[in-house]
Amino acid sequence: MENQRPLHVGIVGATGVVGKEFLILLEKRAFPIASLRLFGSARSAGKRVRWSGGGINNEITVEDLAQADPTGLDLALFSAGKGVSLEHAPRFAAAGVVVVDNSSAFRRDPAIPLVVPEVNPGDLATTRSRIIANPNCSTIILLMALAPIHRALDVVDCVVSTYQAVSGAGKAAVDELFGQARAFAAGDEPRCEAFDRPIFLNVLPQIGPWQANGDSEEEAKFTQESRKILGDNTFRCHATCVRVPVERCHSESVYVRLGRATSEQEILALLRAAPGVALDDLATPRELANREEVFVSRVRVDEEDPRVLRFWVVSDQLWKGAALNSIQIAEAMGALGRFDQ
Amino acid sequence: MENQRPLHVGIVGATGVVGKEFLILLEKRAFPIASLRLFGSARSAGKRVRWSGGGINNEITVEDLAQADPTGLDLALFSAGKGVSLEHAPRFAAAGVVVVDNSSAFRRDPAIPLVVPEVNPGDLATTRSRIIANPNCSTIILLMALAPIHRALDVVDCVVSTYQAVSGAGKAAVDELFGQARAFAAGDEPRCEAFDRPIFLNVLPQIGPWQANGDSEEEAKFTQESRKILGDNTFRCHATCVRVPVERCHSESVYVRLGRATSEQEILALLRAAPGVALDDLATPRELANREEVFVSRVRVDEEDPRVLRFWVVSDQLWKGAALNSIQIAEAMGALGRFDQ
Repeated sequence: MENQRPLHVGIVGATGVVGKEFLILLEKRAFPIASLRLFGSARSAGKRVRWSGGGINNEITVEDLAQADPTGLDLALFSAGKGVSLEHAPRFAAAGVVVVDNSSAFRRDPAIPLVVPEVNPGDLATTRSRIIANPNCSTIILLMALAPIHRALDVVDCVVSTYQAVSGAGKAAVDELFGQARAFAAGDEPRCEAFDRPIFLNVLPQIGPWQANGDSEEEAKFTQESRKILGDNTFRCHATCVRVPVERCHSESVYVRLGRATSEQEILALLRAAPGVALDDLATPRELANREEVFVSRVRVDEEDPRVLRFWVVSDQLWKGAALNSIQIAEAMGALGRFDQ
Repeated sequence: MENQRPLHVGIVGATGVVGKEFLILLEKRAFPIASLRLFGSARSAGKRVRWSGGGINNEITVEDLAQADPTGLDLALFSAGKGVSLEHAPRFAAAGVVVVDNSSAFRRDPAIPLVVPEVNPGDLATTRSRIIANPNCSTIILLMALAPIHRALDVVDCVVSTYQAVSGAGKAAVDELFGQARAFAAGDEPRCEAFDRPIFLNVLPQIGPWQANGDSEEEAKFTQESRKILGDNTFRCHATCVRVPVERCHSESVYVRLGRATSEQEILALLRAAPGVALDDLATPRELANREEVFVSRVRVDEEDPRVLRFWVVSDQLWKGAALNSIQIAEAMGALGRFDQ
């Protein structure tokens, strides 16, 4: 963000799993910050959070969001759940604040862009909305690899099975997995609260409530959000979403049928040219936490039917799937001069 | 096995992960046993194994397979790896012993049946081979659910992503997962020998060596073995096989395109009528160890294209995927009178 004047930035949900990553990434990416305010629930208000980014080396006291006046902020990064976003994001936007919202609150609202900056930056250029929605983590990770393939080769059908980390379900879910591992080592029974069943030594094929068609909510998002991001209402994604006992990074097994025949060389060339995508011999989630890229492995074009492609994709869902993508949206808004209006 | 005279049975690989399940299941299923001999490597020879099945309540000393004379055995259950089977199964068969082999040694041999008793029992009735091959665990679990659907509705294309338990890689792999969990609890680094990378808090998208077409060996088996079992050389299965930190039971996310439209009701009726298949609201591997059935959940027929079906299938790969299926083959051979010839 060269030439961007330092911004007055707020983080809503600052003590949550994604909120902490906002703090790390604002510093890592040298985001131009004039001041930083942190907002949370009444329960979190008053907590002090240490932050040394942007030349500000001190502790910041978390403010009670319900009582906070957003006047003077340029940008607010929201990641405190759908209910909080529905209640407070419009209030922030009305006060002139650009809001990047990591919840599902506005993703399907036709007036609000849903953006992966590498995929549909044009949707930022053409909007007047001050609220921008950040897509679901699994959808971002898929589309980072799939969008350039779709544009070149026309994805006719897409089948995805996911291997999703527990941090996607929040800090309590991570604590539960770790607690169950410690209980195992101690010879104790697992305790279950965040998930109905043990996640340690298990996989759980349900993420979010069931929809009318039998999909889980997480599965339904793949088609709904991909259509909006790609601007293609014929796009189909048959997803099966599964929680696995991994701390961080989502993995996805992807099968696509293309509109025309391709080759491994062509797919690799498309992926090499895709910003934010890295090729890896064998991407595994434990090894790829705290990496900005989306890692693609195991690109296979079917030997009998060269319109059939499979690959394996892994990325840190707290970074590219959430905090990093949101900050990149803010950076793109800066490049469009939206903080100077 | 009513009316079957008690048999002289040998287990080759008796101290391995599957060998132990043979002992449990022979007792559980009241397999008619006149005598039981256990065979292992020179390293295992001399070990004493306690067994209380079949009215034999004592300790059995493991014999050195290389030195053993199989004369007098009716049946040998092999699960000691491909090399051992290639060397010793023909020797046992030549001595008149019916061999059920759980390795990959003979699966692709056109003279040797590859059998899931619920799917292709006819291949036992028509063979003269004394060696019968037990299919790969993942393929058995898939076909238990898919074969009745294929016969009724013609599976045109099949996409499978697996979530495979570490016990499929042997006892050392289970010990490694457990050891890494204990190391985590103690604050120590994971030690890796059975797998190249930690399996705790990870998933590994490679099972077996790479094939020329980019598939892993485990992935290639799906199409190769399914074609032989189904007797359909046009059957296609696009598999992605992934090891997950689960002790026992493989799970599979399955997508199929059918030759004609179906309904959820039709699929559920087919599965209810399928022997050895059980419907379950949400099958998870940790909860389904030591169960004989293959559990199917999440049956979904696509609302836009009723030729597209998805389901989730879980089964104990050491039981129906290995030891149980082998014993069922032996039971079927008994029903065919093959031990009375």
